[in-house]
Amino acid sequence: MSTTKPFARSACAVANSLDVVGDKWSLLVVRDLLHGKSTYGELANSPEHIPTNILAERLKRLEAAGIIVGTPYQERPVRYAYTLTPKGKALGDVLLAFVRWGKQHIPGTVAMDRGKASGKTAASTATPRRTRARHTKPGSRQ
Amino acid sequence: MSTTKPFARSACAVANSLDVVGDKWSLLVVRDLLHGKSTYGELANSPEHIPTNILAERLKRLEAAGIIVGTPYQERPVRYAYTLTPKGKALGDVLLAFVRWGKQHIPGTVAMDRGKASGKTAASTATPRRTRARHTKPGSRQ
Repeated sequence: MSTTKPFARSACAVANSLDVVGDKWSLLVVRDLLHGKSTYGELANSPEHIPTNILAERLKRLEAAGIIVGTPYQERPVRYAYTLTPKGKALGDVLLAFVRWGKQHIPGTVAMDRGKASGKTAASTATPRRTRARHTKPGSRQ
Repeated sequence: MSTTKPFARSACAVANSLDVVGDKWSLLVVRDLLHGKSTYGELANSPEHIPTNILAERLKRLEAAGIIVGTPYQERPVRYAYTLTPKGKALGDVLLAFVRWGKQHIPGTVAMDRGKASGKTAASTATPRRTRARHTKPGSRQ
Protein backbone atom coordinates (compact mmCIF):
# COMPACT_ATOMS: atom_id res chain seq x y z
CA MET A 1 0.00 0.00 0.00
CA SER A 2 1.41 3.35 -1.02
CA THR A 3 1.70 6.10 1.54
CA THR A 4 2.63 8.71 -1.07
CA LYS A 5 0.74 11.97 -0.71
CA PRO A 6 0.82 13.52 -4.16
CA PHE A 7 -1.01 16.63 -2.97
CA ALA A 8 -0.19 18.90 -0.07
CA ARG A 9 -3.73 18.87 1.30
CA SER A 10 -6.15 16.85 -0.85
CA ALA A 11 -6.85 16.09 -4.50
CA CYS A 12 -9.53 18.80 -4.56
CA ALA A 13 -9.13 21.03 -7.61
CA VAL A 14 -10.14 24.07 -5.57
CA ALA A 15 -7.70 23.39 -2.73
CA ASN A 16 -4.81 22.86 -5.13
CA SER A 17 -5.69 25.95 -7.14
CA LEU A 18 -5.76 27.98 -3.93
CA ASP A 19 -2.35 26.60 -2.96
CA VAL A 20 -1.03 28.31 -6.11
CA VAL A 21 -3.03 31.53 -6.37
CA GLY A 22 -5.02 31.68 -3.12
CA ASP A 23 -3.68 34.92 -1.71
CA LYS A 24 -4.39 38.63 -1.90
CA TRP A 25 -1.86 39.39 -4.62
CA SER A 26 -1.24 36.63 -7.14
CA LEU A 27 -4.49 37.07 -9.05
CA LEU A 28 -3.91 40.82 -9.20
CA VAL A 29 -0.57 40.18 -10.91
CA VAL A 30 -2.38 37.87 -13.34
CA ARG A 31 -5.05 40.57 -13.85
CA ASP A 32 -2.38 43.14 -14.72
CA LEU A 33 -0.57 40.81 -17.11
CA LEU A 34 -3.89 40.07 -18.83
CA HIS A 35 -4.29 43.83 -19.16
CA GLY A 36 -1.02 44.14 -21.02
CA LYS A 37 1.49 44.99 -18.31
CA SER A 38 4.73 43.07 -18.45
CA THR A 39 7.58 44.62 -16.48
CA TYR A 40 8.27 44.61 -12.77
CA GLY A 41 7.90 48.38 -12.70
CA GLU A 42 4.52 48.31 -14.41
CA LEU A 43 3.29 45.63 -12.01
CA ALA A 44 4.60 47.50 -8.98
CA ASN A 45 2.78 50.61 -10.18
CA SER A 46 -0.75 49.16 -9.95
CA PRO A 47 -3.36 51.04 -7.93
CA GLU A 48 -3.11 48.43 -5.14
CA HIS A 49 0.63 49.16 -4.70
CA ILE A 50 1.85 45.64 -4.08
CA PRO A 51 4.88 45.74 -1.75
CA THR A 52 7.93 45.09 -3.91
CA ASN A 53 9.23 42.21 -1.79
CA ILE A 54 5.86 40.48 -2.16
CA LEU A 55 5.80 41.18 -5.91
CA ALA A 56 9.24 39.62 -6.32
CA GLU A 57 8.19 36.53 -4.35
CA ARG A 58 4.90 36.15 -6.24
CA LEU A 59 6.63 36.43 -9.63
CA LYS A 60 8.97 33.62 -8.59
CA ARG A 61 6.11 31.49 -7.35
CA LEU A 62 3.94 32.11 -10.43
CA GLU A 63 6.86 31.27 -12.71
CA ALA A 64 7.59 28.06 -10.76
CA ALA A 65 3.92 27.12 -11.13
CA GLY A 66 4.03 27.57 -14.90
CA ILE A 67 1.61 30.49 -14.84
CA ILE A 68 4.02 33.14 -16.14
CA VAL A 69 7.35 33.19 -17.95
CA GLY A 70 10.01 35.85 -17.67
CA THR A 71 12.03 36.78 -20.76
CA PRO A 72 15.05 39.11 -20.58
CA TYR A 73 14.46 42.36 -22.43
CA GLN A 74 17.66 44.07 -21.33
CA GLU A 75 21.12 43.10 -20.06
CA ARG A 76 23.40 44.75 -17.46
CA PRO A 77 21.41 44.69 -15.36
CA VAL A 78 19.24 42.01 -16.83
CA ARG A 79 15.54 42.84 -16.70
CA TYR A 80 12.60 40.66 -17.51
CA ALA A 81 9.29 41.02 -19.26
CA TYR A 82 6.66 38.69 -17.89
CA THR A 83 3.94 37.07 -19.92
CA LEU A 84 1.20 34.61 -19.10
CA THR A 85 1.42 31.02 -20.26
CA PRO A 86 -1.78 29.33 -21.52
CA LYS A 87 -2.21 28.03 -17.95
CA GLY A 88 -1.97 31.60 -16.69
CA LYS A 89 -4.29 33.04 -19.33
CA ALA A 90 -6.87 30.43 -18.35
CA LEU A 91 -7.09 32.12 -14.93
CA GLY A 92 -9.02 34.83 -16.75
CA ASP A 93 -12.16 32.79 -16.10
CA VAL A 94 -11.46 32.82 -12.36
CA LEU A 95 -10.89 36.58 -12.48
CA LEU A 96 -14.14 37.04 -14.37
CA ALA A 97 -16.01 35.12 -11.68
CA PHE A 98 -14.45 37.36 -9.02
CA VAL A 99 -15.34 40.49 -11.00
CA ARG A 100 -18.98 39.39 -11.28
CA TRP A 101 -19.21 38.44 -7.61
CA GLY A 102 -17.48 41.60 -6.43
CA LYS A 103 -19.56 43.93 -8.59
CA GLN A 104 -22.77 42.29 -7.41
CA HIS A 105 -21.97 41.92 -3.72
CA ILE A 106 -19.42 44.60 -2.76
CA PRO A 107 -21.07 47.97 -3.39
CA GLY A 108 -19.05 50.45 -5.40
CA THR A 109 -16.57 48.04 -6.88
CA VAL A 110 -15.91 48.06 -10.60
CA ALA A 111 -14.33 45.91 -13.25
CA MET A 112 -10.80 47.28 -13.60
CA ASP A 113 -10.30 48.10 -17.26
CA ARG A 114 -6.96 48.30 -19.01
CA GLY A 115 -6.73 52.04 -18.53
CA LYS A 116 -7.26 51.92 -14.79
CA ALA A 117 -5.04 48.90 -14.32
CA SER A 118 -2.21 50.60 -16.15
CA GLY A 119 -1.97 53.15 -13.37
CA LYS A 120 -1.06 55.80 -15.94
CA THR A 121 -2.61 58.77 -14.25
CA ALA A 122 -1.06 62.21 -14.37
CA ALA A 123 0.45 61.65 -10.95
CA SER A 124 2.08 58.35 -11.71
CA THR A 125 3.46 58.53 -15.23
CA ALA A 126 6.95 59.27 -13.94
CA THR A 127 7.06 56.27 -11.64
CA PRO A 128 7.44 53.21 -13.86
CA ARG A 129 10.80 54.08 -15.35
CA ARG A 130 12.44 54.71 -12.00
CA THR A 131 10.97 51.59 -10.45
CA ARG A 132 11.86 49.47 -13.45
CA ALA A 133 15.43 50.69 -13.43
CA ARG A 134 16.00 49.13 -10.04
CA HIS A 135 14.73 45.76 -11.05
CA THR A 136 16.64 42.63 -11.78
CA LYS A 137 14.95 39.25 -11.81
CA PRO A 138 13.96 38.04 -8.34
CA GLY A 139 16.60 35.66 -7.12
CA SER A 140 19.32 37.06 -9.38
CA ARG A 141 20.51 39.78 -7.05
CA GLN A 142 23.76 41.39 -8.03
CA MET B 1 -11.88 67.57 -2.42
CA SER B 2 -12.58 64.41 -0.48
CA THR B 3 -9.67 62.39 0.79
CA THR B 4 -11.89 59.51 1.85
CA LYS B 5 -10.60 56.15 0.70
CA PRO B 6 -13.68 53.92 0.61
CA PHE B 7 -11.64 50.87 -0.35
CA ALA B 8 -8.57 49.43 1.31
CA ARG B 9 -6.64 49.14 -1.94
CA SER B 10 -8.66 50.19 -4.99
CA ALA B 11 -12.22 50.01 -6.33
CA CYS B 12 -11.30 46.91 -8.35
CA ALA B 13 -13.93 44.20 -7.88
CA VAL B 14 -11.21 41.53 -7.96
CA ALA B 15 -9.01 43.23 -5.36
CA ASN B 16 -11.93 43.76 -3.00
CA SER B 17 -13.17 40.20 -3.45
CA LEU B 18 -9.68 38.93 -2.66
CA ASP B 19 -9.58 41.08 0.47
CA VAL B 20 -12.53 39.01 1.70
CA VAL B 21 -11.86 35.49 0.42
CA GLY B 22 -8.35 35.66 -1.05
CA ASP B 23 -6.62 33.11 1.14
CA LYS B 24 -6.01 29.39 1.22
CA TRP B 25 -8.94 28.54 3.48
CA SER B 26 -11.99 30.78 3.14
CA LEU B 27 -13.19 29.36 -0.16
CA LEU B 28 -12.75 25.81 1.18
CA VAL B 29 -15.10 26.69 4.04
CA VAL B 30 -17.57 28.04 1.47
CA ARG B 31 -17.11 24.86 -0.60
CA ASP B 32 -17.95 22.70 2.42
CA LEU B 33 -21.00 24.76 3.35
CA LEU B 34 -22.22 24.49 -0.25
CA HIS B 35 -21.79 20.74 0.12
CA GLY B 36 -24.10 20.64 3.12
CA LYS B 37 -21.75 20.86 6.08
CA SER B 38 -22.78 23.28 8.78
CA THR B 39 -21.09 22.71 12.15
CA TYR B 40 -17.62 23.64 13.30
CA GLY B 41 -16.80 19.96 13.75
CA GLU B 42 -17.88 19.07 10.24
CA LEU B 43 -15.84 21.92 8.80
CA ALA B 44 -12.78 21.00 10.88
CA ASN B 45 -13.07 17.42 9.62
CA SER B 46 -12.51 18.23 5.93
CA PRO B 47 -9.76 16.38 4.06
CA GLU B 48 -7.58 19.52 4.12
CA HIS B 49 -7.67 19.61 7.95
CA ILE B 50 -7.93 23.34 8.46
CA PRO B 51 -6.19 24.28 11.71
CA THR B 52 -8.91 25.01 14.26
CA ASN B 53 -7.61 28.46 15.17
CA ILE B 54 -7.71 29.44 11.49
CA LEU B 55 -11.19 27.95 11.07
CA ALA B 56 -12.47 29.99 14.03
CA GLU B 57 -10.93 33.16 12.61
CA ARG B 58 -12.26 32.55 9.11
CA LEU B 59 -15.79 31.87 10.38
CA LYS B 60 -15.70 35.21 12.19
CA ARG B 61 -14.40 36.99 9.12
CA LEU B 62 -16.90 35.35 6.75
CA GLU B 63 -19.77 36.21 9.09
CA ALA B 64 -18.58 39.83 9.37
CA ALA B 65 -18.47 39.98 5.57
CA GLY B 66 -22.07 38.76 5.27
CA ILE B 67 -21.06 35.54 3.56
CA ILE B 68 -22.25 33.16 6.29
CA VAL B 69 -24.58 33.33 9.28
CA GLY B 70 -24.28 31.32 12.47
CA THR B 71 -27.45 30.13 14.20
CA PRO B 72 -27.39 28.49 17.65
CA TYR B 73 -28.49 24.87 17.50
CA GLN B 74 -27.67 24.03 21.12
CA GLU B 75 -27.24 25.85 24.45
CA ARG B 76 -24.82 25.20 27.35
CA PRO B 77 -22.44 25.36 25.69
CA VAL B 78 -23.96 27.24 22.83
CA ARG B 79 -23.02 25.83 19.43
CA TYR B 80 -23.70 27.23 16.01
CA ALA B 81 -24.74 25.89 12.66
CA TYR B 82 -23.38 27.95 9.79
CA THR B 83 -25.19 28.56 6.54
CA LEU B 84 -24.37 30.60 3.47
CA THR B 85 -26.17 33.84 2.75
CA PRO B 86 -27.14 34.61 -0.86
CA LYS B 87 -23.83 36.54 -1.08
CA GLY B 88 -22.03 33.41 0.08
CA LYS B 89 -23.92 31.06 -2.21
CA ALA B 90 -23.00 33.29 -5.14
CA LEU B 91 -19.34 32.37 -4.52
CA GLY B 92 -20.27 29.01 -6.07
CA ASP B 93 -19.46 30.54 -9.44
CA VAL B 94 -15.96 31.44 -8.25
CA LEU B 95 -15.49 27.91 -6.91
CA LEU B 96 -16.67 26.47 -10.21
CA ALA B 97 -14.10 28.55 -12.08
CA PHE B 98 -11.37 27.26 -9.73
CA VAL B 99 -12.57 23.66 -10.18
CA ARG B 100 -12.40 23.99 -13.97
CA TRP B 101 -8.98 25.64 -13.92
CA GLY B 102 -7.56 23.16 -11.42
CA LYS B 103 -8.87 20.09 -13.21
CA GLN B 104 -7.49 21.33 -16.50
CA HIS B 105 -4.11 22.62 -15.32
CA ILE B 106 -3.14 20.73 -12.16
CA PRO B 107 -2.85 17.05 -13.12
CA GLY B 108 -4.68 14.60 -10.90
CA THR B 109 -6.98 17.06 -9.20
CA VAL B 110 -10.70 16.36 -9.07
CA ALA B 111 -13.93 18.15 -8.33
CA MET B 112 -14.63 17.41 -4.69
CA ASP B 113 -18.12 15.93 -4.52
CA ARG B 114 -20.38 15.96 -1.49
CA GLY B 115 -19.28 12.51 -0.39
CA LYS B 116 -15.58 13.32 -0.45
CA ALA B 117 -16.06 16.71 1.13
CA SER B 118 -18.06 15.24 3.99
CA GLY B 119 -14.98 13.35 5.13
CA LYS B 120 -17.23 10.50 6.25
CA THR B 121 -14.84 7.65 5.60
CA ALA B 122 -14.69 4.57 7.80
CA ALA B 123 -11.72 6.01 9.65
CA SER B 124 -13.28 9.37 10.41
CA THR B 125 -16.90 8.71 11.31
CA ALA B 126 -16.12 8.97 15.01
CA THR B 127 -14.38 12.33 14.72
CA PRO B 128 -17.09 14.93 14.06
CA ARG B 129 -19.01 14.36 17.29
CA ARG B 130 -15.94 14.68 19.47
CA THR B 131 -14.69 17.75 17.63
CA ARG B 132 -18.11 19.37 17.65
CA ALA B 133 -18.48 18.82 21.39
CA ARG B 134 -15.56 21.14 22.03
CA HIS B 135 -16.93 23.95 19.97
CA THR B 136 -18.44 27.16 21.10
CA LYS B 137 -18.80 30.10 18.77
CA PRO B 138 -15.50 31.79 17.99
CA GLY B 139 -15.15 34.78 20.21
CA SER B 140 -17.54 33.44 22.85
CA ARG B 141 -14.98 31.56 24.89
CA GLN B 142 -16.17 30.29 28.23
